[in-house]
Amino acid sequence: MKNKIDRVLRYSIFAIFAISLTSVANAADPLPSWNEGPAKTAILEFVAAVIDTSSKDYVDPAERVATFDNDGTLWVEYPMYTQALFAFDRVEKLAPQHPEWKTTQPFKALLAGDMQTVGASGMTGITQIIMASHAGMSGDEFAQEVTQWLATARHPKLGCLYKECIYQPQLELLAYLRANAFKTFIVSGGGIQFMRPMTLQAYGIPPWQVVGSSIVSTFKKENGKDVVRQPKIDFIDDKDGKPVGIYEHIGVRPILAFGNADADMQMIEYTRAGKGRRLGLFVHHTDADREFAYDRKSHVGTLDKVLDQADANGWIIVDMKKDWKQVFPVNSQ
Amino acid sequence: MKNKIDRVLRYSIFAIFAISLTSVANAADPLPSWNEGPAKTAILEFVAAVIDTSSKDYVDPAERVATFDNDGTLWVEYPMYTQALFAFDRVEKLAPQHPEWKTTQPFKALLAGDMQTVGASGMTGITQIIMASHAGMSGDEFAQEVTQWLATARHPKLGCLYKECIYQPQLELLAYLRANAFKTFIVSGGGIQFMRPMTLQAYGIPPWQVVGSSIVSTFKKENGKDVVRQPKIDFIDDKDGKPVGIYEHIGVRPILAFGNADADMQMIEYTRAGKGRRLGLFVHHTDADREFAYDRKSHVGTLDKVLDQADANGWIIVDMKKDWKQVFPVNSQ
Repeated sequence: MKNKIDRVLRYSIFAIFAISLTSVANAADPLPSWNEGPAKTAILEFVAAVIDTSSKDYVDPAERVATFDNDGTLWVEYPMYTQALFAFDRVEKLAPQHPEWKTTQPFKALLAGDMQTVGASGMTGITQIIMASHAGMSGDEFAQEVTQWLATARHPKLGCLYKECIYQPQLELLAYLRANAFKTFIVSGGGIQFMRPMTLQAYGIPPWQVVGSSIVSTFKKENGKDVVRQPKIDFIDDKDGKPVGIYEHIGVRPILAFGNADADMQMIEYTRAGKGRRLGLFVHHTDADREFAYDRKSHVGTLDKVLDQADANGWIIVDMKKDWKQVFPVNSQ
Repeated sequence: MKNKIDRVLRYSIFAIFAISLTSVANAADPLPSWNEGPAKTAILEFVAAVIDTSSKDYVDPAERVATFDNDGTLWVEYPMYTQALFAFDRVEKLAPQHPEWKTTQPFKALLAGDMQTVGASGMTGITQIIMASHAGMSGDEFAQEVTQWLATARHPKLGCLYKECIYQPQLELLAYLRANAFKTFIVSGGGIQFMRPMTLQAYGIPPWQVVGSSIVSTFKKENGKDVVRQPKIDFIDDKDGKPVGIYEHIGVRPILAFGNADADMQMIEYTRAGKGRRLGLFVHHTDADREFAYDRKSHVGTLDKVLDQADANGWIIVDMKKDWKQVFPVNSQ
């Protein structure tokens, strides 16, 4: 009997010891996919300061709002924004119902795979493609279209499903922030209703914590009592639009904001202009082997002015190649 | 020693018994300010069904979204919307900087207390008053103005601070829903930024779970890097606007919605048109003694078509006089 008690006791002590070791390991590194360096240090020091009730930098949990851009910050945007690919695929799918597209630009070029002509059609052409692919159906129908597309669409080079071409270090950062009573939001130039079907599963961010661009919707009692998506731009959540989107949808100025492009500068400026300690970060895509390398001259996620102004403004540049030990979740590819 | 153990044991058993009794009491009545009746029963049965994993009505926590109108549903709206009174007070405060108002309607009438002429100025006049009182300052400045006003403004008849003229039964319902993994939202015709400074403290609803009407905002880097509120309507979150506001801001169709006026019908219809079990409720203001009695012919919170259609549609009418044991929180007056 004594032996049995001893064994149980020893096992218990061992178990407690093992749990403690794990806790210490977790406490020591909540961001295992981040290499040691100035970016990781800046994040850890920032969070430690704002949750420390004895610190001058302490922030009440109700004010712990963190905003993240999506394309290029949480998931892959290169060589083409995922939503543009969705739009192109959808135009192809709808083409049989639109014989006029065979002779009308930019649809004719798009259906022929002539992306140069599509690109040359400029904002007018792109807007036509977006409206043709994103409007004219109910809210529920659009969510279903997006969900179906995301279930199978894969990145041609990386091989992952687009919805799994997401950055492991950012998943850890989102979880770490939430574990410290932050509320995490997406603030993206992408379509608000395009992102919502995947953000909870991919990032742990519920639909109402997603801010993005939108087209006008109207309520139709006759149409299954759902909203109907109209072919008219409502709001562009990019550049100057990001602080406005934050003000309208969140109503609290963030204390941490994370982007990857010049189009995120205003969000970072708005964030950092608040009272007290604030943190602004940008992903710099420097990793041609594991992902892509692009910045000043890229047609997506242009990162140019930010690189010139980061030091003077105290913005943190996260160098994907140096700062991220692992880029994608295991098994995502 | 044995006696001591006995005493401790007896005390423990008594304590456990007492705690159990309290638990049973709480479990039996999570809504102590609601009288027994069809409304309370409908709420309790609905919540029990959607949280029961073995029920056909079970709803995943991620979909447990409940939306509440504000004016007349969560706080007093009679005899005048609180936000209108804020606007009037603010025009008075700003009058010294606007000598032209002495000779321009509707400001001249408003400053003279001639509310009949103000009312006769119609939507054009009211819009002028809203723009003069709500636009032309930064987001932070407006929040500060609202907070200062709410700190002292009192309802002339009820005597409570406006921010405390809130309904105790609804506070219990909000807490009960949240305890059952619901997310609670406000979806109001009132100004989104007018409500946000008080919703967390009053209702436990954070700013990003507040949906309302808005004016256009623009980001000004030069102006303290804040948004500036512009004298232009952006979105009216009322009637047909409520389902649209829900779609844009929340992105999930509610399973429970609570209003008090014909202007809430579309929100209730949108809610109830979703698949599975849904609940739609309206407060009927029937209590001239404890609050106010008004419905079909009221100029605020008109409740007319709803009363005609409620039975046929399965909407629950909450009769304030009959269904609410207590209207306001203790010490709010």
